[in-house]
Amino acid sequence: MSTINRQWILKQRPSGFVDQDTFEYRESDCPQPNIDAGEVLIKTLYLSFDPAMRGWMDDKPSYLPPVGIGEPMRASGVGQVIASGHPGFPKGSLITGLLSWQEYILLDSTSAEQLHILPEGTEPSMALSAFGGTSMTAYFGLLDVGQPKAGDTVLVSGAAGATGSVVCQIAKLKGCKVIGIAGAADKCAWLKTECGVDETIDYSNEDVAAKLAELAPLGINVFFDNVGGSILEAGIEHMAEHSSIVLCGSISAYNDTEHSPGPSNLMLLIARRIRMQGFIMLDYLSRIDEFNAEFGSWFMEGKIKTQEDIQEGFDNIPTTLVRLFAGKNKGKQLLKLAEPK
Amino acid sequence: MSTINRQWILKQRPSGFVDQDTFEYRESDCPQPNIDAGEVLIKTLYLSFDPAMRGWMDDKPSYLPPVGIGEPMRASGVGQVIASGHPGFPKGSLITGLLSWQEYILLDSTSAEQLHILPEGTEPSMALSAFGGTSMTAYFGLLDVGQPKAGDTVLVSGAAGATGSVVCQIAKLKGCKVIGIAGAADKCAWLKTECGVDETIDYSNEDVAAKLAELAPLGINVFFDNVGGSILEAGIEHMAEHSSIVLCGSISAYNDTEHSPGPSNLMLLIARRIRMQGFIMLDYLSRIDEFNAEFGSWFMEGKIKTQEDIQEGFDNIPTTLVRLFAGKNKGKQLLKLAEPK
Repeated sequence: MSTINRQWILKQRPSGFVDQDTFEYRESDCPQPNIDAGEVLIKTLYLSFDPAMRGWMDDKPSYLPPVGIGEPMRASGVGQVIASGHPGFPKGSLITGLLSWQEYILLDSTSAEQLHILPEGTEPSMALSAFGGTSMTAYFGLLDVGQPKAGDTVLVSGAAGATGSVVCQIAKLKGCKVIGIAGAADKCAWLKTECGVDETIDYSNEDVAAKLAELAPLGINVFFDNVGGSILEAGIEHMAEHSSIVLCGSISAYNDTEHSPGPSNLMLLIARRIRMQGFIMLDYLSRIDEFNAEFGSWFMEGKIKTQEDIQEGFDNIPTTLVRLFAGKNKGKQLLKLAEPK
Repeated sequence: MSTINRQWILKQRPSGFVDQDTFEYRESDCPQPNIDAGEVLIKTLYLSFDPAMRGWMDDKPSYLPPVGIGEPMRASGVGQVIASGHPGFPKGSLITGLLSWQEYILLDSTSAEQLHILPEGTEPSMALSAFGGTSMTAYFGLLDVGQPKAGDTVLVSGAAGATGSVVCQIAKLKGCKVIGIAGAADKCAWLKTECGVDETIDYSNEDVAAKLAELAPLGINVFFDNVGGSILEAGIEHMAEHSSIVLCGSISAYNDTEHSPGPSNLMLLIARRIRMQGFIMLDYLSRIDEFNAEFGSWFMEGKIKTQEDIQEGFDNIPTTLVRLFAGKNKGKQLLKLAEPK
């Protein structure tokens, strides 16, 4: 085992996009667990990169406290227990949960209990992609918040992203017509051929509002929005009466230095009796069994396709986050640090 | 009975506020009902003036078709049947429903069935104020869409308006803490002394966001918004987690020539899991018995105070609509044309 612990710490809060001054590389001594006190030492194997991480860097109250200046950046990840004083997390266990950008993480007994042990035989990266928070976000956001019925027209923005592509496939499994919006022709092609999406709109080359009018002449029943901004506005314009908009994210605005104006057509929510609702996947952790049962069986039957974009190397952690916000990832953005032993 | 029928017709669609070119005075012959065909002739007694009327003048699809150019302007009203071939609407009956800006209205048998007969002894103006669509809007919007619980903090914008003031009082009857936003000191005083509102914010003299931070330190649980624009944005900023925003109207934007930008802080709907939902009172007509039972008993027990602002005179119809949009009305804006006979 190494005697040093490599870390990427939050050096200063970004005012817009993250850049080379946002994070700082640091080496510290590898922490030593106090086994008698129940401490657990984790070695980081995989890191997940998620749009929500941008919000965690801002110094304002939200559903999680902001990452502190000088602390390793918070991230979902998969790790392996390499020393443990907690009987629930024996040495060798593979775990997933909120980790951080460092090779070794020392947790006290209580903090360790926030982790989940990977079911036997789970591929570590899968715990962050197909079986991770991304798919839970898609599952509960679409079904519990959006509540589509068979035959509904479902619109998904950021459709080729990790969450969006799973939303599209769940909607198809529930008998809906699915329109996916993505930012490149190859992403649109992948959505049609691999994910079974009925119609796609390439927002980098097509007029989203005009295409929506053509593709959803009776209006959209459920809009799962990962993007915000002008895409949200175009979607609102084409919602059906008594429809719903699931606000999952607004990646278009996460890096704004100032708040962008919101959609100018919110009045349509009244005339068309539209429900617009935000949600956070963490609220659904107590319902993980529902997800494992239904989503797990779809997955085992090969009915859900996921893509992983796995970068490698500790040095590449910050640039992989930039890669995500630049929309260059194909599928779930991960970074691999080590194999389990 | 008069042989002429005075009318105010929609001359041209306004691009912003209604002005002297929006409506045109016209006299036509008083219509003669075909009694054998079941036709009904109504004499208009009271007209109601409602923010939603502005939307009815725009040539775009909505929950009701636009008023046609050259047609009398549509309005809720109370009238009296003066000749009838429909056994359900005998001569002398007082009715309420969607009428229009003319002294006499001829309805075929099917159209007449959209009207409601006033319960015996109802004061005609009350059918448009305390017992009218305005109070139904307040009742179902707050209770069915907003779903406040006892102890919740409820924010109401346009609180001194016809709908808002009833929302405030229903929220108090349901055990909530109520904060009302209005645009004048005397309106705020009336809300406190007559409607029992706990706290008020005079947006013409006070910083709404700063006052909300002070008055709702734990956040707002239900926000009933009649206004939109910057007031909606300030309210969103102070919503509690798992709260709801009832979109009833956005009088601040009804007369815009261009769409104003929406709230720049919609992302908070995600972090705080906020539900924002629009509604239209017409959807609740089938549940009018619920309203009559609960609201009616409150009213009979003197627990609901309403104000009526009753203008008079056929010539003053267009300026009374302007009066409403200028916020000069004190309570429900009505205009009286005639007494029942």
